[in-house]
Amino acid sequence: MLRSFFSLFCACSLVLGSARAAESPDDVRARQIVNAPSYKAAVAAFERDYERFVDELIRLTEIPAPPFKEQLRAEAYAKLLREVGLEQVEIDAEGNALGLWRGTGGGPLLAVAAHLDTVFPEGTDVRVKRQGTRLLAPGVGDDTRGLAFLLAAIRAMRAAKVTTTSDILFVGNVGEEGPGDLRGVRYLFGQSPWRDRIKRFITVDGRSNDLITNGALGSKRYRVTFKGPGGHSWGAFGQASPAFALGNAIAKLSKVVVPKQPKVSYNVGVISGGTSVNSIPFEVAMEVDMRSTSREELAKIDAQFLKLVEEAVVEENAARLTTFGKISADVKLIGERPSGVTPPESPVLRQVAATMKTFEKVPVWETSSTDANIPISLGIPAFAMASQSANRSGRAHSLDEWTDVEKTTAVKDFGLALALILSVADMP
Amino acid sequence: MLRSFFSLFCACSLVLGSARAAESPDDVRARQIVNAPSYKAAVAAFERDYERFVDELIRLTEIPAPPFKEQLRAEAYAKLLREVGLEQVEIDAEGNALGLWRGTGGGPLLAVAAHLDTVFPEGTDVRVKRQGTRLLAPGVGDDTRGLAFLLAAIRAMRAAKVTTTSDILFVGNVGEEGPGDLRGVRYLFGQSPWRDRIKRFITVDGRSNDLITNGALGSKRYRVTFKGPGGHSWGAFGQASPAFALGNAIAKLSKVVVPKQPKVSYNVGVISGGTSVNSIPFEVAMEVDMRSTSREELAKIDAQFLKLVEEAVVEENAARLTTFGKISADVKLIGERPSGVTPPESPVLRQVAATMKTFEKVPVWETSSTDANIPISLGIPAFAMASQSANRSGRAHSLDEWTDVEKTTAVKDFGLALALILSVADMP
Repeated sequence: MLRSFFSLFCACSLVLGSARAAESPDDVRARQIVNAPSYKAAVAAFERDYERFVDELIRLTEIPAPPFKEQLRAEAYAKLLREVGLEQVEIDAEGNALGLWRGTGGGPLLAVAAHLDTVFPEGTDVRVKRQGTRLLAPGVGDDTRGLAFLLAAIRAMRAAKVTTTSDILFVGNVGEEGPGDLRGVRYLFGQSPWRDRIKRFITVDGRSNDLITNGALGSKRYRVTFKGPGGHSWGAFGQASPAFALGNAIAKLSKVVVPKQPKVSYNVGVISGGTSVNSIPFEVAMEVDMRSTSREELAKIDAQFLKLVEEAVVEENAARLTTFGKISADVKLIGERPSGVTPPESPVLRQVAATMKTFEKVPVWETSSTDANIPISLGIPAFAMASQSANRSGRAHSLDEWTDVEKTTAVKDFGLALALILSVADMP
Repeated sequence: MLRSFFSLFCACSLVLGSARAAESPDDVRARQIVNAPSYKAAVAAFERDYERFVDELIRLTEIPAPPFKEQLRAEAYAKLLREVGLEQVEIDAEGNALGLWRGTGGGPLLAVAAHLDTVFPEGTDVRVKRQGTRLLAPGVGDDTRGLAFLLAAIRAMRAAKVTTTSDILFVGNVGEEGPGDLRGVRYLFGQSPWRDRIKRFITVDGRSNDLITNGALGSKRYRVTFKGPGGHSWGAFGQASPAFALGNAIAKLSKVVVPKQPKVSYNVGVISGGTSVNSIPFEVAMEVDMRSTSREELAKIDAQFLKLVEEAVVEENAARLTTFGKISADVKLIGERPSGVTPPESPVLRQVAATMKTFEKVPVWETSSTDANIPISLGIPAFAMASQSANRSGRAHSLDEWTDVEKTTAVKDFGLALALILSVADMP
């Protein structure tokens, strides 16, 4: 089946080639990579070793890894990174499991990551169920499939004696999901001994290999708690209420006009507070998420938000009595992700596009919030990509999450993902 | 001690009497009652039997009676009503325990109630602790002390052969607190066989015998749930959000101007909803309480509230996209208590004031939400009173609720409360 796919591919490639203008240097390199005997041997090695990929995916999925509790899975992953032959394998101070693939030298260091954590809390049943070629379990697709893919890729590269000019730092990182706030990759580029050496970054985390996430969606998240003295709804009527301050803040936010391009979003996601219907609350809270692809626009909506919270507090204290105390707002930053973009015209992404073209794909550039946000915001060429094609996984973040490991497609998808990594790692 | 108190009282009464205008017929009747040998004997009987009052208060307090779960306490109370010699003792269809005291005939039927229920949920530790003359336990003051007082009063009246013209229906009623929404007394005046016979009503429930609650504070309570399709905070940005509709409704409510006289109050007591900071909620809710001493004003704020909720929904659906569904509001009435007032000039309250005067007290007329709301709203002379003086109980609705049963004060307070009941029951 692999052969027939490659035959088909080569035929198409020739047809396309003849119909188009002369190949660019990127196209030439891309073709060299996918035609290299060692690359083909690596894909063939994956095909032979396919069952191990599935087994490891199941094994890793069944090790719970809630946010801030990735340790068990990190230890298992570090052990596997050692088994597949990486050097300097360790768990770093933040909890990331990582190890080094030695290149032939002279290329910029590439880090390739997948994240260890899932959104699911402790106690979630993470046992994998099979339905035909589908594996079902919380976290199986997001991002355990990415973790298992990295192991399979390293193993196949070794088996086929693939060489790269660049060293590759393979990382199973912590803290990608919600509350983790990208802490694993933030550490990698912030305090880690590797921080100044990593010149390119790929995270294998996504829903379709048609998409390349080169835009870092910046976000700021707050939990705002409005406080006051509270009181009886009748006896203390006329006294300032945190609920009114909150309502006014939400109303003000709802009226903020933001540009469509670059896109800006804001959301009140969670509200809570109050003790009984007939008590003026002493505390109510809201969780607010703001995002933009533009750093400037994000800073702008952020400032507007902080100002309107302040206004709502001042207005509430002016509108009603404050005999027993004033209303205040406790504004807590609960998430911050930087924005930015790796331009499609950058050398790395031109090479990515050329490599995808050999697979008859045109990259759909996407902006999202991923571990790539951190390097992108630092100006380091970085993106997120998926190791599987569209509709091969679904229901991420839900208890009925699934991923499909049907072999023919899995092998084909492996070929593309490996080629992309090798092209960014300067395979000679 | 009782004697010295009464001596003091009589002396003062004479001084007051000589300094003032001629006594009114109400004053004369009041004096007749408190000077009647049978009344004095009843107070003396209470003093002799004081320990039983304390024991029954403890015993009743330790029978849990959460809202809608008053049955065990109702059964115990019905048994005690039988023991003290009432007739026609039963637990009615709503769960109220009641029994009849026979008068000499010809007077209007008086119902005297205390409520069985407490605010405390199942599982609350209701064991009574003693600290000197203080009894501490959830519910001990509100309103178990009222229940124990009624038993003590009936027993003392029997022991002293007190006669009343009116029959008195003694009631331990269910459903006074929050969610009960006055269901016990609502039944008594709505469906009960007694409903058309009760011409006067007293509930023994309050914090100080200086206060007479003759005003029925009407209230309406709603739980409003704003619903929508929800979505991702970034991907679905621009779609209508239930959180914005809620915020706008709260903001609108906060700007409603209400009269100071008759007083009107409104409150957003509890808010909740949403699943995560980066999801547009599919559901958020608020609980709102509105009150007024005036039926018309309550109807007005009620209508304004319902209108502004509707407006907030319409505006949110107009302000944003509704591609996947519109915002709606599910408005649920969770409480409704009628307003009204028994005028201080009414014969019953003139008699109450005159009786209090013999105890050197001037009634402080109060408006509140009590079981008396129901008869007051029906035009039946009714009020709530306390069976103890100020600062003899505290921390109602909290786990460290207490009541003080120091004997001298308890006997003195008993005397006033009994005199008030007898004056309304047309003691000859």
